[in-house]
Amino acid sequence: IKAGEKDAVKRAIRRWPPQHLLALIVHLPLKRARKLFGWLDKLQTRVVAELNPAFRSALLEDCTVQRLVDVLDGMEPEEAADQLDDLPDEVEAQVLPRLKDRGAIESLRDYREESAGSIMSRKFVAVPPDWTVGQVTHEIRANARAIEKLYAVYVVDAEHHPLGYLRLRDLLLSPKEARVADVMSTDFVAVGPDTDQEEVAAIADRYELSVVPVVDADGRLIGRITPKQLRRVLREEAEEDRNLMAGLPADTRPDESIVRIVRGRIPWLLIGLAGASLSATVVGAFEDQLAKAAILASFIPIVMSMAGNAGIQASTVAVQGLSTGTVKFADLGWRLMKELLAALANGAIAALVLVALVIGVAQVMDFDAPMVLAAGAGLSLLTVVVVAVAVGATIPIVLDKLGIDPAMATGVFITTGNDILSVMIFFLMMSLFYLPLLP
Amino acid sequence: IKAGEKDAVKRAIRRWPPQHLLALIVHLPLKRARKLFGWLDKLQTRVVAELNPAFRSALLEDCTVQRLVDVLDGMEPEEAADQLDDLPDEVEAQVLPRLKDRGAIESLRDYREESAGSIMSRKFVAVPPDWTVGQVTHEIRANARAIEKLYAVYVVDAEHHPLGYLRLRDLLLSPKEARVADVMSTDFVAVGPDTDQEEVAAIADRYELSVVPVVDADGRLIGRITPKQLRRVLREEAEEDRNLMAGLPADTRPDESIVRIVRGRIPWLLIGLAGASLSATVVGAFEDQLAKAAILASFIPIVMSMAGNAGIQASTVAVQGLSTGTVKFADLGWRLMKELLAALANGAIAALVLVALVIGVAQVMDFDAPMVLAAGAGLSLLTVVVVAVAVGATIPIVLDKLGIDPAMATGVFITTGNDILSVMIFFLMMSLFYLPLLP
Repeated sequence: IKAGEKDAVKRAIRRWPPQHLLALIVHLPLKRARKLFGWLDKLQTRVVAELNPAFRSALLEDCTVQRLVDVLDGMEPEEAADQLDDLPDEVEAQVLPRLKDRGAIESLRDYREESAGSIMSRKFVAVPPDWTVGQVTHEIRANARAIEKLYAVYVVDAEHHPLGYLRLRDLLLSPKEARVADVMSTDFVAVGPDTDQEEVAAIADRYELSVVPVVDADGRLIGRITPKQLRRVLREEAEEDRNLMAGLPADTRPDESIVRIVRGRIPWLLIGLAGASLSATVVGAFEDQLAKAAILASFIPIVMSMAGNAGIQASTVAVQGLSTGTVKFADLGWRLMKELLAALANGAIAALVLVALVIGVAQVMDFDAPMVLAAGAGLSLLTVVVVAVAVGATIPIVLDKLGIDPAMATGVFITTGNDILSVMIFFLMMSLFYLPLLP
Repeated sequence: IKAGEKDAVKRAIRRWPPQHLLALIVHLPLKRARKLFGWLDKLQTRVVAELNPAFRSALLEDCTVQRLVDVLDGMEPEEAADQLDDLPDEVEAQVLPRLKDRGAIESLRDYREESAGSIMSRKFVAVPPDWTVGQVTHEIRANARAIEKLYAVYVVDAEHHPLGYLRLRDLLLSPKEARVADVMSTDFVAVGPDTDQEEVAAIADRYELSVVPVVDADGRLIGRITPKQLRRVLREEAEEDRNLMAGLPADTRPDESIVRIVRGRIPWLLIGLAGASLSATVVGAFEDQLAKAAILASFIPIVMSMAGNAGIQASTVAVQGLSTGTVKFADLGWRLMKELLAALANGAIAALVLVALVIGVAQVMDFDAPMVLAAGAGLSLLTVVVVAVAVGATIPIVLDKLGIDPAMATGVFITTGNDILSVMIFFLMMSLFYLPLLP
C-alpha cells in the first residue's frame, strides 16, 4: 500500500484517531514510516510527541525545518529541549528561533545535560499557606487546561520557598474552609537543578515519590519532574551503561548516519588495537619457542576467550552492584575473596575439561610430551580465569571510588587488559613446564 | 563504632526517624549493615521495605525466620511476594505460612514471574457509575488509611468490568451531585495479568499512564500497577539485558553465595570453551605453516580482539534498537548496508594502522617478505572487522524475529562465533598470499 499512493493513504487516515496513527507508524519499517510521516498534516504530526525519543529522532532525521517546528510546538518544553539536542547543530539553529515556546526551552537548555533542571517541567500549581482548600480548588479549576497532569499542589511562601505540599486527596477530603497550612504534608523532599538525573531517580525511589520537585540554589521551587520523565531517565541511564560497556559513545542511537557510526566506534577500536598489539608483542617474544612447538599457538584463542568471558561476567556483576548500591568500596576485600573462590572452582572445571580435550586429541595427533602439555594448559587456564576475574571484579569498584563511570571499564579496557595478561600467563607457564622438555 | 558495641548503638538510634536509619544502612559496608540490622527492633526493621530489592535481599541473606516474617509483614503484598521469590526455597517454605498477608501474597504468586499479575497491587478504589461525586469522596475518606497512594478511582459495573476512571482532579472540580458516569474519562487502557512486565512499561509510556490497571481474562478489574513498580520493572529489565549480554543468568544478583556464582557462570564459560576449542582447531590445522612462520601467531590476538570489539559494538546497537523499537526486521537490509559501509571505513583505518605497525616493526626485526606480511595482515583485519560487524548487526535481529531474546546472543555467542571466523579468515588469507612466498 505504501508504494507511493500518497493521496489514497492520506484520505484513508484523515480521520484516524492519534493512537491508531501512532500504532501504524510504530509498526512500519523506518523508511516507510518516514514517508508516511511526510504525508501527515500539521495536526497529525503532533502524534510523534508520544513516540519514544530514539525512534522519534530517527523518524525526524531528514524532514524539513517547518515540519520540525510543527512537531516541536506540539511537545512539552522539556521534551522539545531534549529533541533539539538530538538534532544536528545547523538544523537546531534554524529551528529554535521559530518555536512558540522558545523562552521556556532556552531556559531549560541552560542547565547541564542530564541534570534535574534539564528534564523538569516548569508547569506546576503552587499556592500560599494561608489560602483555604476552596481557594486552591478554584485555582486548579482556573488552570485545569494548562496543567495536563496534576499530581500534587505545592505550598510556597511569598519568596517561592516550598513549605509543604497537598496531595489531591488532601484537597478532596478536607472541608472547603480548611487552611492549606493545616492540611498540607511537610515531609518535603526536593532536588536541586544540578542534581544528576540518575540521582533524581534514586531519590524518587528512596522516598517513594511519583513526582520530584526541583528547587533552585536559593531554595525557591522552580519545577517538577513527572513520572514519565523519571521512567525516561531510567531507560536512558540503562542505555548509556550498555553503550559504555560495549565501547560506544554514551549517546549512541540505533539509527545514525554512517559518519557518526564511524566516528563513534573508531576510538575504542583503535584503543583495542593498541592493546592487542601488546598481546601480539608478548606472543612475538616467544617466537622461537613457537617455531619449536607450533601447537602452542592453538591455545591462544582458548586462554584469550576464557579470560574475556570470565572477566566480563565478574565486571558486569560489579557494575550492576555499584549502580544498585549493593556493592561498595568498603566491601571490596570480602567480595574479592568470594569472587576468587568461585573463579577457582570455575577455572578448575574448565581446566579439567581442557586437560581431557588435549589428552583426547593426543590420541589422534602426535604431540611431544602430551601429558605435560595437557597439565600445563590446564594450569594456565585456571590461572588465567582467576586473574581475569580478579581484574574484572576489582577495576570497576576502584574506578567508581575514583569518580570514573565504572561501566566504561567493563568493555574494552578490562577485555584488552585480560587479553594481554592471559597470553602472558600462558606462555610463561609453558616456558617453565613444557618447553624445557622439548628436544 | 560498629565494632561490637551493640547496646550503645541501639540506644543511640532508638529514636531515629526511619529515613535516617535507612541512610545509615545504605552507607555502611554490607557486613556491618547486616550486623546493625540484627540489632534493630521489630518496628525498625520495617525500614528495609524502602530499600532497593537487590540490596535488601543481600541484607536479609542470613537473618532468622522470625525476622523475615517481621520484615515481610511490613511490606506491600506485591513486594513481599517478590522478596519471597528471592529467598532460598527452604526458607520460603518456613516463612510463607507465618505471614499476615499470606492469602494476598499466594494469589499474586500464582501469576507467572514478571507478568503484570505478579507485580500488581490489589488495592484500588472502584465505584459504580451511578454514584455521585459526593459518594465517591465519602468512600475514599472511609478507606483513606488502607490506600496509601491514590492515583485514580476506577468506575466498574456490577460484574467489575471497568467502564472508565476518575482522575482525582475530576472529583475535586466536579459538583458533589454530579453522577460519576457523567464526569469519568472513558479512554480506559488496561493490561491482562499475563502481560509481560516489559510490555506493561511500554504501554505506560505509550499512553502516558502513571498507573496501569489490570483486568482478568473476563475483563474484570483486579489490580493496578503503581509508578514505583513501573520504575522497578525498567530497572529489572535493564539488569536482565546486561546480565544476558555478559553471559550471566538473567536474575544474577551482585551478592550471591559462592555456589550460586559458580552455578550461574560455568555454563557460559563452558560454551565459550567449546567455541574456543573450535578456534584452536582452526589454528591447529595451520600448525605446519606456523612452524615455518611463527610470527603469524602474533596476529591471532589482534584479529580476535578486533573481531570481538567490532562485533560487540554492532550487536549492542542492534539490541538497543530492538528494545526501543527503532530497529525492526523489515529494516534489516538497509541497516546492514549502513553498518557494512561504516565497518569498511573503520576496518580500513584499523588496517592501515596495522600495516604501518608491521612495517615499523620490520625495520627492527627480521621478517620474511615484510611488505606482503603487512599487506596480508591489513587485508585480513579489514575482512575480519567487516564480517564481525555483519554477524553482530544481523544475529540479534534474526533472533528477535524468531522470538529469542536478542540480548542473549550479544554475549558469548557472537563473540565466540567471531573468534572462530576471525582466526579462520586470517589463516586462509595468509595461506593464499604470504605463505607461498616463504622458502
